[in-house]
Amino acid sequence: MSGGFSHLDEQGSARMVDVGAKATTQRTATAKGRVHMARDTVEAIRAGGVEKGDVISVARLAGIMGAKRTAELIPLCHPLPLSSADVDLHLAEDADAVEITATCRIAAQTGVEMEALTAVSVAALTIYDMCKAVDKGMRIGDIRLVHKSGGKSGTYEAA
Amino acid sequence: MSGGFSHLDEQGSARMVDVGAKATTQRTATAKGRVHMARDTVEAIRAGGVEKGDVISVARLAGIMGAKRTAELIPLCHPLPLSSADVDLHLAEDADAVEITATCRIAAQTGVEMEALTAVSVAALTIYDMCKAVDKGMRIGDIRLVHKSGGKSGTYEAA
Amino acid sequence: MSGGFSHLDEQGSARMVDVGAKATTQRTATAKGRVHMARDTVEAIRAGGVEKGDVISVARLAGIMGAKRTAELIPLCHPLPLSSADVDLHLAEDADAVEITATCRIAAQTGVEMEALTAVSVAALTIYDMCKAVDKGMRIGDIRLVHKSGGKSGTYEAA
Amino acid sequence: MSGGFSHLDEQGSARMVDVGAKATTQRTATAKGRVHMARDTVEAIRAGGVEKGDVISVARLAGIMGAKRTAELIPLCHPLPLSSADVDLHLAEDADAVEITATCRIAAQTGVEMEALTAVSVAALTIYDMCKAVDKGMRIGDIRLVHKSGGKSGTYEAA
Amino acid sequence: MSGGFSHLDEQGSARMVDVGAKATTQRTATAKGRVHMARDTVEAIRAGGVEKGDVISVARLAGIMGAKRTAELIPLCHPLPLSSADVDLHLAEDADAVEITATCRIAAQTGVEMEALTAVSVAALTIYDMCKAVDKGMRIGDIRLVHKSGGKSGTYEAA
Amino acid sequence: MSGGFSHLDEQGSARMVDVGAKATTQRTATAKGRVHMARDTVEAIRAGGVEKGDVISVARLAGIMGAKRTAELIPLCHPLPLSSADVDLHLAEDADAVEITATCRIAAQTGVEMEALTAVSVAALTIYDMCKAVDKGMRIGDIRLVHKSGGKSGTYEAA
Repeated sequence: MSGGFSHLDEQGSARMVDVGAKATTQRTATAKGRVHMARDTVEAIRAGGVEKGDVISVARLAGIMGAKRTAELIPLCHPLPLSSADVDLHLAEDADAVEITATCRIAAQTGVEMEALTAVSVAALTIYDMCKAVDKGMRIGDIRLVHKSGGKSGTYEAA
Repeated sequence: MSGGFSHLDEQGSARMVDVGAKATTQRTATAKGRVHMARDTVEAIRAGGVEKGDVISVARLAGIMGAKRTAELIPLCHPLPLSSADVDLHLAEDADAVEITATCRIAAQTGVEMEALTAVSVAALTIYDMCKAVDKGMRIGDIRLVHKSGGKSGTYEAA
Repeated sequence: MSGGFSHLDEQGSARMVDVGAKATTQRTATAKGRVHMARDTVEAIRAGGVEKGDVISVARLAGIMGAKRTAELIPLCHPLPLSSADVDLHLAEDADAVEITATCRIAAQTGVEMEALTAVSVAALTIYDMCKAVDKGMRIGDIRLVHKSGGKSGTYEAA
Repeated sequence: MSGGFSHLDEQGSARMVDVGAKATTQRTATAKGRVHMARDTVEAIRAGGVEKGDVISVARLAGIMGAKRTAELIPLCHPLPLSSADVDLHLAEDADAVEITATCRIAAQTGVEMEALTAVSVAALTIYDMCKAVDKGMRIGDIRLVHKSGGKSGTYEAA
Repeated sequence: MSGGFSHLDEQGSARMVDVGAKATTQRTATAKGRVHMARDTVEAIRAGGVEKGDVISVARLAGIMGAKRTAELIPLCHPLPLSSADVDLHLAEDADAVEITATCRIAAQTGVEMEALTAVSVAALTIYDMCKAVDKGMRIGDIRLVHKSGGKSGTYEAA
Repeated sequence: MSGGFSHLDEQGSARMVDVGAKATTQRTATAKGRVHMARDTVEAIRAGGVEKGDVISVARLAGIMGAKRTAELIPLCHPLPLSSADVDLHLAEDADAVEITATCRIAAQTGVEMEALTAVSVAALTIYDMCKAVDKGMRIGDIRLVHKSGGKSGTYEAA
């Protein structure tokens, strides 16, 4: 290891960390994020959502499918056969934003933080894609891990 | 169209917009984003970066490769044979963060905003993945389009 | 060529036909298919559909995304940057079935029949997947090309 | 759950069902399907098959490879490391058709019906692709699950 | 540029070269390679080949499909909609080896050397995979570009 | 089986071998290969490498990511959730070449030879891609398995 960065070997070269000696335990990770947008865009999603729900439901599906492709996107991530992926999207009550929460689960030798974070990111990008014709100024932010359990490092809860 | 959302047809169903009648023009898009982290994490990247450069270079490559997969991730995006993708990462001077900028180009009937935003997102996720052993509290934010040119809607510059 | 099979060369070996000398023309293809199911399953989709629309909208999205992956699935298909993909699903009026119609378009040197047929197939498989907990006896059928235009062989309409 | 549809949560939103609490058992699924075609097309395949075998062997391989990509195509399918995939194709004796049978196996917490059905569908689409230069009127049909064993719901045999 | 390496910018960072200003011309590339093996393995392929042809035909198909995925595998390759891919395999006359030749074609702003080389590599790996139960000592070698035409740098013929 | 070729069934048709009855054991495979090039190309990599390291580090990453995609490329390979992948590249001391070594590990019912060989091949192709502007005459060779352990057939060491 090199200064605590588990993805770098002694020479600092990138590698996929060997998790073969780790215990297989039940692991869960939850991530969150937001897409900030103009009030009119929020209202347009709300109106469309009530009637048809498509912006939210397309983004949810994209997030779930994105979680399954995490190891293809993130170079040093281990391929993991996820046992579940949930993506929830709703209009924030305290801001002009869509709030996204994703939870992934697996029994494996390594955690699923990256799967949860990738699900949030892909759902957020999909929101952007579907609304960009009316609002190019949207911002994706606050993408962070909020909970993680299972594995040697124990449970993590964001402050 | 349905309330300005070009991805929804008259019934509000999701569809891949027909761009066949649009002009093929030279299109460029630039997106930016940040990964906020503890000062120690910034310093660890800086130290590693000076010596080996791997955290930054792995994230750059992941961003470039992510840009090429945009249409697989974002359900209603058109597949586009990108003519270039540049991803730049550096340690921010005004904050404890890595700043990411991605620019994509193509001559096509539709723009490459999503490719640039996807490149930034995948690079940011990769930074998170590579540093998460030392810092689980990182936040990905400020992902937004900063420039877009080409196409009927003309040039867009973020305020 | 070998007996009219354009994918086989003189020795009968598989190859990806050279379309480089063909004219780039506007091409359209429409395919249809059905998922036959128990009346109760139709009613459950209808009830869910009126309220939330998810079975139909997930299958529509899967069909669109499937169309984009045609060249990865069908060994000798050319990769094509589709300019549009529309997938429509509705409950058949004359049978206990979901009816699926997909239309793909492109300006290219080869047609998009396989993209339209793949969209229908993936949408049908998704219907099966989402309803299989209540009905394992569903049948996917009647998948066929109904319309094709553009290209040297001219317009095709199914009898 | 919502009306028996395990892919919809209480609000009817799509999700990837959590299979983490299910037992890991040996699971098998067999699916079948047919590609109906003109007698001349059958004869051309037969002639080619005797001499070179390529139409059938390309479709078989496409089916096997398609089975491995099921979770990428079907939005709410779990990624599964298949332990085997067999795809058999032969000219039907009772009709002008190619008959396709696929069997998939795995030791896992969820079944492989979708893998078997996807293998049949991709093999069928490949048959269409390889023969479409001589026969655009082919129809893909009768795609159904014929056998399933393993898992809590027990063995299923099509009527 | 940095010392003639077109993939590195002035700071030596990896990037996907901008080919947007290059002329779209007809481009062809041919690559070759060999899989060296024990005489008995050659004979087993030959015997199987005469009867069923599967080792050779599976490898051919894998090579064609691999060519289509070049831009996913090689980080800085441009995605290109290939207009043709031919892969030929035969038992070498002068050695105990399978000889592989791949030719790719496209009208594009950049060449298809990498597609031809990838096709050869994937076909070779497939030969290895199919024969490894009887011969683990096989060697893949002599993979090189033998011909390239189209583009500003003109025609290249291997010495 | 047919003449020792485990990928062919009694009729010689391709199939994905059923590994369901095999024991899950810890498996390791190491493969090697070389990219032969002009002395000037070696020197250019060395110079670039000392300063920035990018040619080598891009190829290393491509090899690791390639290992994860083995089952998509090699038609009859089983999908395997790798527990580690290491790719090492260095300038050979005895020749004008880059030497590549890849080691993959997993606890599974089948081995990871193909993953190690694919990692070497993709890293080699990436070296070619990054240096081809200065040297089209490079040759990829000597790709072979050097070590394999785990599984019923026991440990294999190349002569």
